[in-house]
Amino acid sequence: MDSRGSGFKPPFPSLSVPPDPVRGSEGPRRENHFVSDFTDVDTEETWLSDDDLATVRERVPMVYVDAVPVRVDSIGEVTHIGLLLRAMADGTISRALVTGRVVFGERIRHALLRHLEKDLGPMALPRLPANPTPFTVAEYFPDPTISGYHDPRQHAVSLAYIVPIDGEASPAADALDLAWVTPEEAMSVQVIAEMTGGHDRLLRLALGHTGQLP
Amino acid sequence: MDSRGSGFKPPFPSLSVPPDPVRGSEGPRRENHFVSDFTDVDTEETWLSDDDLATVRERVPMVYVDAVPVRVDSIGEVTHIGLLLRAMADGTISRALVTGRVVFGERIRHALLRHLEKDLGPMALPRLPANPTPFTVAEYFPDPTISGYHDPRQHAVSLAYIVPIDGEASPAADALDLAWVTPEEAMSVQVIAEMTGGHDRLLRLALGHTGQLP
Amino acid sequence: MDSRGSGFKPPFPSLSVPPDPVRGSEGPRRENHFVSDFTDVDTEETWLSDDDLATVRERVPMVYVDAVPVRVDSIGEVTHIGLLLRAMADGTISRALVTGRVVFGERIRHALLRHLEKDLGPMALPRLPANPTPFTVAEYFPDPTISGYHDPRQHAVSLAYIVPIDGEASPAADALDLAWVTPEEAMSVQVIAEMTGGHDRLLRLALGHTGQLP
Amino acid sequence: MDSRGSGFKPPFPSLSVPPDPVRGSEGPRRENHFVSDFTDVDTEETWLSDDDLATVRERVPMVYVDAVPVRVDSIGEVTHIGLLLRAMADGTISRALVTGRVVFGERIRHALLRHLEKDLGPMALPRLPANPTPFTVAEYFPDPTISGYHDPRQHAVSLAYIVPIDGEASPAADALDLAWVTPEEAMSVQVIAEMTGGHDRLLRLALGHTGQLP
Repeated sequence: MDSRGSGFKPPFPSLSVPPDPVRGSEGPRRENHFVSDFTDVDTEETWLSDDDLATVRERVPMVYVDAVPVRVDSIGEVTHIGLLLRAMADGTISRALVTGRVVFGERIRHALLRHLEKDLGPMALPRLPANPTPFTVAEYFPDPTISGYHDPRQHAVSLAYIVPIDGEASPAADALDLAWVTPEEAMSVQVIAEMTGGHDRLLRLALGHTGQLP
Repeated sequence: MDSRGSGFKPPFPSLSVPPDPVRGSEGPRRENHFVSDFTDVDTEETWLSDDDLATVRERVPMVYVDAVPVRVDSIGEVTHIGLLLRAMADGTISRALVTGRVVFGERIRHALLRHLEKDLGPMALPRLPANPTPFTVAEYFPDPTISGYHDPRQHAVSLAYIVPIDGEASPAADALDLAWVTPEEAMSVQVIAEMTGGHDRLLRLALGHTGQLP
Repeated sequence: MDSRGSGFKPPFPSLSVPPDPVRGSEGPRRENHFVSDFTDVDTEETWLSDDDLATVRERVPMVYVDAVPVRVDSIGEVTHIGLLLRAMADGTISRALVTGRVVFGERIRHALLRHLEKDLGPMALPRLPANPTPFTVAEYFPDPTISGYHDPRQHAVSLAYIVPIDGEASPAADALDLAWVTPEEAMSVQVIAEMTGGHDRLLRLALGHTGQLP
Repeated sequence: MDSRGSGFKPPFPSLSVPPDPVRGSEGPRRENHFVSDFTDVDTEETWLSDDDLATVRERVPMVYVDAVPVRVDSIGEVTHIGLLLRAMADGTISRALVTGRVVFGERIRHALLRHLEKDLGPMALPRLPANPTPFTVAEYFPDPTISGYHDPRQHAVSLAYIVPIDGEASPAADALDLAWVTPEEAMSVQVIAEMTGGHDRLLRLALGHTGQLP
């Protein structure tokens, strides 16, 4: 049976999916449906049953993107960073960056735009960088001691970008809030304490990359 | 049984695996065995049966690394680029960069070092960059028209690095030859014609990144 | 006498300045007057007589910025590059990137914006990058054989940036024309032949940096 | 006569030079003599009298390089950072990075190597990066409030590089000590308090660039 191509059928029935863990922006429950219209991804092919996703997550690293939404002034300097507030599946509420999976057949730029639109709403205008190189690569592991980036669900290799946002951003999808904080505020003990999984560190690296680290 | 390479035998019988396609450095038949000792990868977890690998390749993008091996002089300028010569499964013989998959639980640096050792031999001393950011990200698709990078087997997101090599490099694994060419030679019509899958373009971007593009 | 600070007077009278050579965007004749209003540069301090500028040019490397103006689409990919057409002092007419000197006390971001406004007009909206790191550093020497970048007037160290342009750009200052060409056109033999001083190479490196080099 | 260094004699008598200010690695008194043999700089052209240097420093930004010397392990990760201890002309003793001016006609790579050799001694083997792009650009101003980088003598635009060091480094020139500290130690309050002019911040950005910022 050739399962590749248009006629693809998930090989196993999707049964009892366990509740989705931390990093709520992109979990099994949402896996099956959301691909925004402007991407040219074939949704048939990217459809993964929850079981399938659980299966591959145990076998190979997943490709992710992280985006640090920023406001910049007329000379390009970062004035504010956008932090989402999310109710995580483990019961905590955390500040988080925009993050999400790259699906099969999807270009990184499309994945970035898709997740930014999903989280910041349709009125936000992300200015994707002309350069495809991330400012850093975050390696998330189930074991939090390996790299400092932690994802209990999986091994994820995430390409991290700084994305200036024009237009009106508003918390979308399952975000409870979107707060724009200054670089100084972003480095405060309070904000850092509200971030999990290494997102506080990713934010420090982003501010370093823009020369804004105090 | 054709096991490609010197005396290699897969630890488990290879059953209904379809013949391995292009980019011979890392194919299904070799998936089960090679994790070099110096990496701290749990080999139990990274073992993928050929069927499993085929299954996940149809569902998610795979994480890869590409390495451009270079010789540098005392002021750090690239004097030579190392190009492998490989017999590809499709019958062609092509010049290629070092490339390979990042396995579950493996850090990118370990994957880079593992594939460099596998292809350049144990006497080569790769100088991995202190900066984890790749010089570019190559998105390989089964459809060659999407990004200019082509892999008939899979959708692979490859982090590409320039790696200065000290010591004595010699073609290992299933490489037929290792040639050190100058940046000018690397840009010649002849060399470009011998590269497939977008590796010629990756090489141009690498030379641009080092300021060596003519 | 303390000549530093507010009461600064140029030590030598400004006499017979020879006509300004190649790279017309920024020559002695314009040195004394142009600092756009939005920069916070103290024009008193940056005032250099033509003789003074000639004197320092023989003694130290000058700090420059080069900008590659681009149009990008909604996913951030470069669709067009803006090339100026200039009458050079040596009598030639060449395609050129935006380029200019960083003056004493001026931040690099302000210099970039100043030269972009000067060359592309007040209706252009440059989107300066959040990251202060240039995509490459071009070292211009009076001797064209040293680095491939050539400026007969001086040794200049130029930080080169890719700058997406919104709004309406129109040739300003002494530019004769502004043409938007595609990446493919920019790599054509014809366009390359119209560029001097290494600007064609800088353009190739810029396209490599954005992953657009064919 | 204090000529500092082995048997060096300045070609011209040093007259009424005011005492050299902060950032002792490269001050007026040393301006006339040091160009190491392996660089192809024309020393005739790069000789600047102290008066000339003082004159140009008031008129144009100076081109500098900053280097963060590091020790890396077999996978390229930074394990230690080399910090110099210097007696500054203002009477303080500070921890400092390697820093120095790029002279007329000198390539950046040669300047980097020259200053690294001058400060770390002839037995150190700096591994200059293949990529000419700095990890950040530090803009030093006489006014410490503009950019966070401060040099009372001048406006300097400094290209900052991370340079792995092999071989045996030992404090040379006028450094009192060379200490190798871990990334954690480098971020300690004590070490930060011992750095001036913004070098502590430059160090944080370097650690961010290598993904080592805690």
